[in-house]
Amino acid sequence: MIVKQMIEAIDFNEVIEHERELPLYHEVTRDILQYLESNHTVTFNEIIMNVGGSDRRTLRLLDQLVQSKVLRFEGGSFSIADQPICPIKSQDVVCPYCDGKIVTIDRNLQHISEKMQTIYAEKPKPTFVFDQRPVNWETTVRRVSYLIWRRDIQNKTIAILGDDDLTSIAVALTGLAKRTVVFDIDERLISFIKKKSRQLHLNLEIFSQDFTKPMPKEFLHCFDVFMTDPTPTEVPFTVFTNVGIRLLKKGESSVGYLSIYPSCMRRNLKIQKTINAMGLMITDLIPFFTQYDFVGETYSERDLRLLDKYSDGISKMSFYEYLLRVQTTYESKEAKIKYKLSELLGGATKRVLSDPRMDPALTSANDGEKSYISDAAGNIVKSQDREMIG
Amino acid sequence: MIVKQMIEAIDFNEVIEHERELPLYHEVTRDILQYLESNHTVTFNEIIMNVGGSDRRTLRLLDQLVQSKVLRFEGGSFSIADQPICPIKSQDVVCPYCDGKIVTIDRNLQHISEKMQTIYAEKPKPTFVFDQRPVNWETTVRRVSYLIWRRDIQNKTIAILGDDDLTSIAVALTGLAKRTVVFDIDERLISFIKKKSRQLHLNLEIFSQDFTKPMPKEFLHCFDVFMTDPTPTEVPFTVFTNVGIRLLKKGESSVGYLSIYPSCMRRNLKIQKTINAMGLMITDLIPFFTQYDFVGETYSERDLRLLDKYSDGISKMSFYEYLLRVQTTYESKEAKIKYKLSELLGGATKRVLSDPRMDPALTSANDGEKSYISDAAGNIVKSQDREMIG
Repeated sequence: MIVKQMIEAIDFNEVIEHERELPLYHEVTRDILQYLESNHTVTFNEIIMNVGGSDRRTLRLLDQLVQSKVLRFEGGSFSIADQPICPIKSQDVVCPYCDGKIVTIDRNLQHISEKMQTIYAEKPKPTFVFDQRPVNWETTVRRVSYLIWRRDIQNKTIAILGDDDLTSIAVALTGLAKRTVVFDIDERLISFIKKKSRQLHLNLEIFSQDFTKPMPKEFLHCFDVFMTDPTPTEVPFTVFTNVGIRLLKKGESSVGYLSIYPSCMRRNLKIQKTINAMGLMITDLIPFFTQYDFVGETYSERDLRLLDKYSDGISKMSFYEYLLRVQTTYESKEAKIKYKLSELLGGATKRVLSDPRMDPALTSANDGEKSYISDAAGNIVKSQDREMIG
Repeated sequence: MIVKQMIEAIDFNEVIEHERELPLYHEVTRDILQYLESNHTVTFNEIIMNVGGSDRRTLRLLDQLVQSKVLRFEGGSFSIADQPICPIKSQDVVCPYCDGKIVTIDRNLQHISEKMQTIYAEKPKPTFVFDQRPVNWETTVRRVSYLIWRRDIQNKTIAILGDDDLTSIAVALTGLAKRTVVFDIDERLISFIKKKSRQLHLNLEIFSQDFTKPMPKEFLHCFDVFMTDPTPTEVPFTVFTNVGIRLLKKGESSVGYLSIYPSCMRRNLKIQKTINAMGLMITDLIPFFTQYDFVGETYSERDLRLLDKYSDGISKMSFYEYLLRVQTTYESKEAKIKYKLSELLGGATKRVLSDPRMDPALTSANDGEKSYISDAAGNIVKSQDREMIG
């Protein structure tokens, strides 16, 4: 299989949405072919969970590979024409019980899994205006399971910075934390978490907070653990992690949880350099752990037809990231940066600010929510060029 | 449970072997108590696999905790007196199938597991003179399983730097690599791997190499992957990783596997800073993955009595480390250091250079092996103060 020739045979204009994405999808093409060589027949969902690319683009790439006869698609699975069966498939060595996720969410967390699945069905539609991109409910419960395993929840004070994933509810459902405080900018989410907290008698404190503004003094340096999940590019990662450091107890061994290395971006050293400059110690980095939910609203008619063809019309997720756990050391400190508000915004946010039709909440929420989010979008557009220090 | 009072109640002179170990065993005491609070009843092996300390010292610490009535020991398990049962135990969320190791070593790797178990029983006794400290056979097979999962073995060229773990044999048994080359300084190991390679018709190249000497030119920049496991303190980690970088193909996405953060040392930022200075990207860091074999020869009569009392006379392992995977970037480069040979030696090596009775090979190998290792030890002692550049 000569990857270079294959890449030349594909019309990447049918795949990518911006020229800067080309190097990534060259890489994804190579990785898909290698993955198929190591696994023989694989489904669309397996590729999204274990290889790379963002779901829509990878879907279109697979279609190109099928159209150009590099791949076969038969019985719901892709394969390379005339590829011999490999003796040990790479997916046959990953744990069949936890799927390589280390922790489980059934057994003693079954009741939390069931509750979270129900609550997820009721939660507000995510909006890219606030850079939301929720993980699936399995990942939310897995994160909590991971905290239990690492003993980062038992009798601990936990700050959650941004909670479109409803991690706070899953944390509180365990009853193991000493104190759980949630900060979010989205009033819809704040109301929703407050309502659930009342209904389920959870021990949760919920506050409205814009992370570009100073945190109230009463929260500084009083937490054992922070959890957050900004877009893992330099500016948002630094701004959110700085807030986390400000909230953590000073000294050694306070803990932060983040997600990095999205499968829909090329990896580079910037995040690691930032972590290093902050004097944070990377203790855990788990590939493929964090699965982002499928967002049907981002699909065009044509994408939906391809999804129907290659995956029964539904995708289990849209991309993955690696779970990151860091610990503070005596050298830990914020890495102050100057930035413009626009640099804090992810690609999806920028897209919906110019075209609201691509936003899940702006297309399908009720009128009250829509006008709330539209107003917020208007405010962001107005202050895009404001210089900030984070 | 007020940890500070507990720590004051313990005679740490009965636990540690050097004053510098005290801060670690204060930490281990706190961690054991927290682990017991989160798990109620636990065995000695569970503590060694999931909490910390080196086996002998943790054994003596547990004995102190039992003697001072902080802990109860009943029916083979430790518990805290009058501790209420916790609703969700931290060990009850870790995957029961892979024990949190992500990959499996049964099923399609069963034949390799069986072979490695047999071969492990025949391999030369490890010697601390060459800083050997083999992992258990399960870890050797798990490492290979991990490489299969990450597609770092399929059709790849792999260099193994130091192989008291016999990783090369397990790699070759898969038949998946394009080329596997082993470098080791210990002639006993070289003969053993050569013999096994012939008997099992493996595709292996085996070379004698002292990593403080230059690597032969023909091996420079021609590997996709290196695997090594030096003592993870600054000097040996840097020297061995430098050799790895020299062997890897230039450019992006070549891969290195190492182990860091031993449970028998306090963690600090030095290793991460070194990795960062080398422009290597940390991609995977898996806690508790790497399990070092039990070495009975390091036990005193008294330690053996305690082991018999608390663990049926056998320990499954002596300490753990975290599995580390790094990738090269266009910024990757060696981090040249000046060092004295003595700085390359781990604690156990220094101990046996002054007292050979603590060395597994020097106490129990045959006369030929003993004189070979003694000669090597003599040479190391002679050149201890030599200035090197690595």
